[in-house]
Amino acid sequence: MEEQQTEIASLGEFGLIKKLTETIELKNASTLKGVGDDAAVLDYKNKLSLVTTDLLLEGIHFDLTYVPLKHLGYKAAVVNFSDIYAMNGSPKQITVSIGVSKRFTVEHIQELYEGIKLACEIYGVDMVGGDTSASVTGLIISITCIGEADSEKVVYRNGAKENNLICVSGDLGAAYMGLQLLERERAVSVGMKDFNPDFAGKEYILERQLKPEARKDIIDTLARNGIRPTSMIDISDGLSSELLHICTQSNVGCRIYEERIPIDYQTAVMASEFNMNLVTAALNGGEDYELLFTVPIEEHEKLQAIDGIRIIGHITKAELGCSMITRDGNELTLQAQGWNAFKNQ
Amino acid sequence: MEEQQTEIASLGEFGLIKKLTETIELKNASTLKGVGDDAAVLDYKNKLSLVTTDLLLEGIHFDLTYVPLKHLGYKAAVVNFSDIYAMNGSPKQITVSIGVSKRFTVEHIQELYEGIKLACEIYGVDMVGGDTSASVTGLIISITCIGEADSEKVVYRNGAKENNLICVSGDLGAAYMGLQLLERERAVSVGMKDFNPDFAGKEYILERQLKPEARKDIIDTLARNGIRPTSMIDISDGLSSELLHICTQSNVGCRIYEERIPIDYQTAVMASEFNMNLVTAALNGGEDYELLFTVPIEEHEKLQAIDGIRIIGHITKAELGCSMITRDGNELTLQAQGWNAFKNQ
Repeated sequence: MEEQQTEIASLGEFGLIKKLTETIELKNASTLKGVGDDAAVLDYKNKLSLVTTDLLLEGIHFDLTYVPLKHLGYKAAVVNFSDIYAMNGSPKQITVSIGVSKRFTVEHIQELYEGIKLACEIYGVDMVGGDTSASVTGLIISITCIGEADSEKVVYRNGAKENNLICVSGDLGAAYMGLQLLERERAVSVGMKDFNPDFAGKEYILERQLKPEARKDIIDTLARNGIRPTSMIDISDGLSSELLHICTQSNVGCRIYEERIPIDYQTAVMASEFNMNLVTAALNGGEDYELLFTVPIEEHEKLQAIDGIRIIGHITKAELGCSMITRDGNELTLQAQGWNAFKNQ
Repeated sequence: MEEQQTEIASLGEFGLIKKLTETIELKNASTLKGVGDDAAVLDYKNKLSLVTTDLLLEGIHFDLTYVPLKHLGYKAAVVNFSDIYAMNGSPKQITVSIGVSKRFTVEHIQELYEGIKLACEIYGVDMVGGDTSASVTGLIISITCIGEADSEKVVYRNGAKENNLICVSGDLGAAYMGLQLLERERAVSVGMKDFNPDFAGKEYILERQLKPEARKDIIDTLARNGIRPTSMIDISDGLSSELLHICTQSNVGCRIYEERIPIDYQTAVMASEFNMNLVTAALNGGEDYELLFTVPIEEHEKLQAIDGIRIIGHITKAELGCSMITRDGNELTLQAQGWNAFKNQ
């Protein structure tokens, strides 16, 4: 008799992770926080160690027909740094493991590493190890980042309190629109030789997709202004999905306002060109790597004086649920339509 | 004009890693040791953090036609612990990233995780994070392990001194012979239904291949006896290759003696059945995960009283090179014929 088999797609990524990790019991005094946040928190005496890891697979997370290897390396490193900043920490070391199939040459891999090294240089991180292997097909990149934080400064996802202000850095949806643009040009270029798409006026959304930055500057600015977020997360799967993480883990609800969501004009133009809903792109488009955080309402004035941070709403009692007030005054329940790799198969 | 392209196979794994990492400059005070040892060493105040990582790919590192997923998970974790012990440290946390193609079900992945969790339980390690993704083809496992060590106790590869004794734990070549056996049975079974190979009398070599252990016991025993190795490495790519790592990094030579190399009788029987050279299997067969280390000659008596550790030779001046004295008194230059994933493509 065959045992019951469940397709992974039926659980989705979060469901699978939950299923795999819910029985884990932490054993060491040095493990303050395991699975379930942007990074694990380890207590190595005076400083906390933060550890985060990401696996990037060709054909799932990236398409080398339009992503230059150097950009890919840069992005692979930066998305890990972003997780460490989202804990209010500083990335310090990374390990890089790669698997490469026969179609890649040494020069290709060097190009990839140049991007990783550039990111390390800019963010002050040391590459301290890794693993290199052949793969049967395609390129595989696995990066682990270790960072540090003062124990009284680390910020989790679960600290949001009623009446806290909800803030977001930068603007949203641009990386997603950049991806749409690249996908369209790739489709158009099939079979064409020396195809040179015209990207004039679309540089910003392309850069957001191909060369995102982690918001070290925001972490520094908050510290300089004496503001400690009550909760924080980086936006990799879309605002909606990340906000629901914060609300679920903090056991609170939220109200955000459509008109307050920061969107760049290039994102808006592109969405219009594609006839796509702009707010959907901003709510559910992934890979922005902006910071989403909550702060006590007392910080309102200080926050308003800071460039590049937008207050988009506030935290409520859990019973009120999580919703967005649209421009026309309707209330829309937020849903986690975040990017799900398992659906892509 | 096309830039020069070099095939990865022409460099080999070590060559590629060297090429990729030789220009790295460490920047943080907390980074005591980066690329180039079994684990990176980070100074988080009173204790050192050790970080190591391994990437395992289906079709390259394992074959699911004869490796049960639970065993695979167990082994994937244990090989990382082994790297931490090889620094004279204790593994404390791991992160686990996996990529899985559509042919895997939730139950398959749970089985894999059960093996990882079992290893964590036995070795006292916490799983603290990871990443889960779809893959286009096959199973991908990337594990990072973080461990701790007292700063005065950590052991590198580069501390071997002239006249030090060369020691090895357990016995060698068994995992390699186990792999040969499994490969043979797989070849024989092609197209056969309900094929049940008879593995009686071969349990040990199969266990060495399918369910290796990390030598925590040896580390504990050495500590209890007050012996601190001058250099240490775990044997994953074969004795010859690992000994050359120690000698190169310590700038010394070595003499080992064929008759002193520990080999289990099942390994010998299997090699004879396959008409293979037994010493070649012991010198170059990978995946034994035993510890290879050097100690001052003054520890000779203490060492001889310890079960499961064999003195196989001694360290010499670098000018004398690295060689093995065969049973018939000849001198054989040691060569790194270790396992090279890039040759398998």
